[in-house]
Amino acid sequence: MPATRAYAAATAKSPLAPFTIERREPRAQEVLIDILYCGVCHTDIHLSRDEWGFSKFPMVPGHEIVGRVAQVGGGVNRFKVGDAVGVGCFVDSCRECGQCKAQQEQFCDQRPTMTYNGVERDGSAVTQGGYSTRITVHEDYVLRVPEAIPLDRAAPLLCAGITTYSPLRHFGVKAGDRVVVVGLGGLGHMAVKIATAMGAKVTVLSTSPNKRDDAMALGAVDFAATADGKVFGERAGQFDFIIDTVSAPHDYNAYLNLLKVDGTMILLGVPDQPAALAAASLIMRRRKLSGSFIGGIAETQEMLDFCAAHGVASDIELIAIDRINTAYERMLKGDVRYRFVIDIASLGTD
Amino acid sequence: MPATRAYAAATAKSPLAPFTIERREPRAQEVLIDILYCGVCHTDIHLSRDEWGFSKFPMVPGHEIVGRVAQVGGGVNRFKVGDAVGVGCFVDSCRECGQCKAQQEQFCDQRPTMTYNGVERDGSAVTQGGYSTRITVHEDYVLRVPEAIPLDRAAPLLCAGITTYSPLRHFGVKAGDRVVVVGLGGLGHMAVKIATAMGAKVTVLSTSPNKRDDAMALGAVDFAATADGKVFGERAGQFDFIIDTVSAPHDYNAYLNLLKVDGTMILLGVPDQPAALAAASLIMRRRKLSGSFIGGIAETQEMLDFCAAHGVASDIELIAIDRINTAYERMLKGDVRYRFVIDIASLGTD
Repeated sequence: MPATRAYAAATAKSPLAPFTIERREPRAQEVLIDILYCGVCHTDIHLSRDEWGFSKFPMVPGHEIVGRVAQVGGGVNRFKVGDAVGVGCFVDSCRECGQCKAQQEQFCDQRPTMTYNGVERDGSAVTQGGYSTRITVHEDYVLRVPEAIPLDRAAPLLCAGITTYSPLRHFGVKAGDRVVVVGLGGLGHMAVKIATAMGAKVTVLSTSPNKRDDAMALGAVDFAATADGKVFGERAGQFDFIIDTVSAPHDYNAYLNLLKVDGTMILLGVPDQPAALAAASLIMRRRKLSGSFIGGIAETQEMLDFCAAHGVASDIELIAIDRINTAYERMLKGDVRYRFVIDIASLGTD
Repeated sequence: MPATRAYAAATAKSPLAPFTIERREPRAQEVLIDILYCGVCHTDIHLSRDEWGFSKFPMVPGHEIVGRVAQVGGGVNRFKVGDAVGVGCFVDSCRECGQCKAQQEQFCDQRPTMTYNGVERDGSAVTQGGYSTRITVHEDYVLRVPEAIPLDRAAPLLCAGITTYSPLRHFGVKAGDRVVVVGLGGLGHMAVKIATAMGAKVTVLSTSPNKRDDAMALGAVDFAATADGKVFGERAGQFDFIIDTVSAPHDYNAYLNLLKVDGTMILLGVPDQPAALAAASLIMRRRKLSGSFIGGIAETQEMLDFCAAHGVASDIELIAIDRINTAYERMLKGDVRYRFVIDIASLGTD
């Protein structure tokens, strides 16, 4: 297998730069994928800068991967050369625990093998992600991307899409439900589209008053800026669900108070400090506060099929790989509507 | 209607002392109850000392009331003189909102009328509770107490019993589930008994190592003292539910980590300060943190019938009314196993 072009962070302090990695020949049940597009997730910034303290360098980020099958192992029967496919946040799991058997590999008791900054289950190598021209993955962890979805706009579905679809589905959002989406970024804009496609009536809450038009265009029926706090009184007790995509510190109690009796607030963002939670926010209306973490492979396939059927895809800004460091800086300022996607052709061919 | 003997707090600073109140003649759909027993709930202390800032004086506490019907209004058809009956935390609600119609009067949009320190819906009077020889209540808010339950040991079921039964039932605890009960006091000892009667395997966690024998005698299969923190590592990820009865500040994250994927922790206690909650405690295993507040009338009746069928009643220490101030002091030291119940005969007869 020839060397594969990639972009990597050499250290936590280095900007991303051209790099070369080796991808393995597909084993019996593996497929080799020519990557076409890779979405840029906030996690890529956290990990490439070692902000969580467990990064391995050099690191090729990227876990919103879409491409076409280039080669299949002898035992592969679910994919053939040319198929449009995707790879999300993990590429393997133990396959034996209760969670894997329940198709919830994201909660694997032995932890799933993350698509990058992970370690192959045989311990042989650190995994490298989608800022590269090729990747080899076991077919059980490869998704079929419906051709109805433009492939560049499909890439962010592999992380932002499933991260929002999974809780909406798991907690039972249905037509007519009133859903708040907190934060209109990469995750938030997918939550609005998917919840709306499920028939829910979506209210977007954002710190940015200037996102109103976008929110409505994405499908929301209501928008409120949160800065003056008025919304928390005016809309108290009105909602069935809250999807909270915000990672900055904020007051969960104020948001919980927007829920009806038996309403559920689902956290997707992880602030770097714990939040102050008042027990009465939950007790007096039997509200639930939960969280959700990506999704399993079967559920991710279901999400892709759902998006194809409902005409849902990510709103993206397509960039060449040499713009990646600038893109990171813009993401930190919230300056992207709503996901950067790398055109992997810009890496060149071998 | 002759004057009714009672014990009341004259002010937030006064010990409880003999007092006289007026009970109304039962209207068409009301019953007059001769009170036999009244349980002593921690709420009685909070309210009689105005610790929550909305107390009305003079106050007759008590919302774990058991007695016998003494007189019925002309339109009453569910009760007759001599029936064993109970009254819990509220005596009325709006009857028209979605919550009332769904038999969840505890969440009434207009708030239920609390049994004491409430205001009658017509605004005519402040309600007075069960530390008294009689009470007049609309039949829709009166419970039938099965004769299989000793009446003195039934009294605490009207608050401590329903407060623990309701979440166990609502959140679907079933045979074989592994349930943690945090704190072994008035609520905790009922949670152990009821969850065990539902077929769950109960682990009691307590700050008091000397409660092990009691926990096992109540039906627990496992006990751990929490002081050294070891239990949080040793039993991580093992439980389906946690019923948290503790009102003192404690680390929710440590307890959440005891839950399996999709496990639920239910708060019943309200610490006077918010707790620090880490989003990752919920997200990484999709755990739920919720709360629960007493129960509706139909559910309270279901609980009483369940307790009768399963031989469940409260463990009590029966006291004369003149011991009430001493009882409060002992409760504040955790010195009761597990509920004081006032023998209302000790108030004397008119």
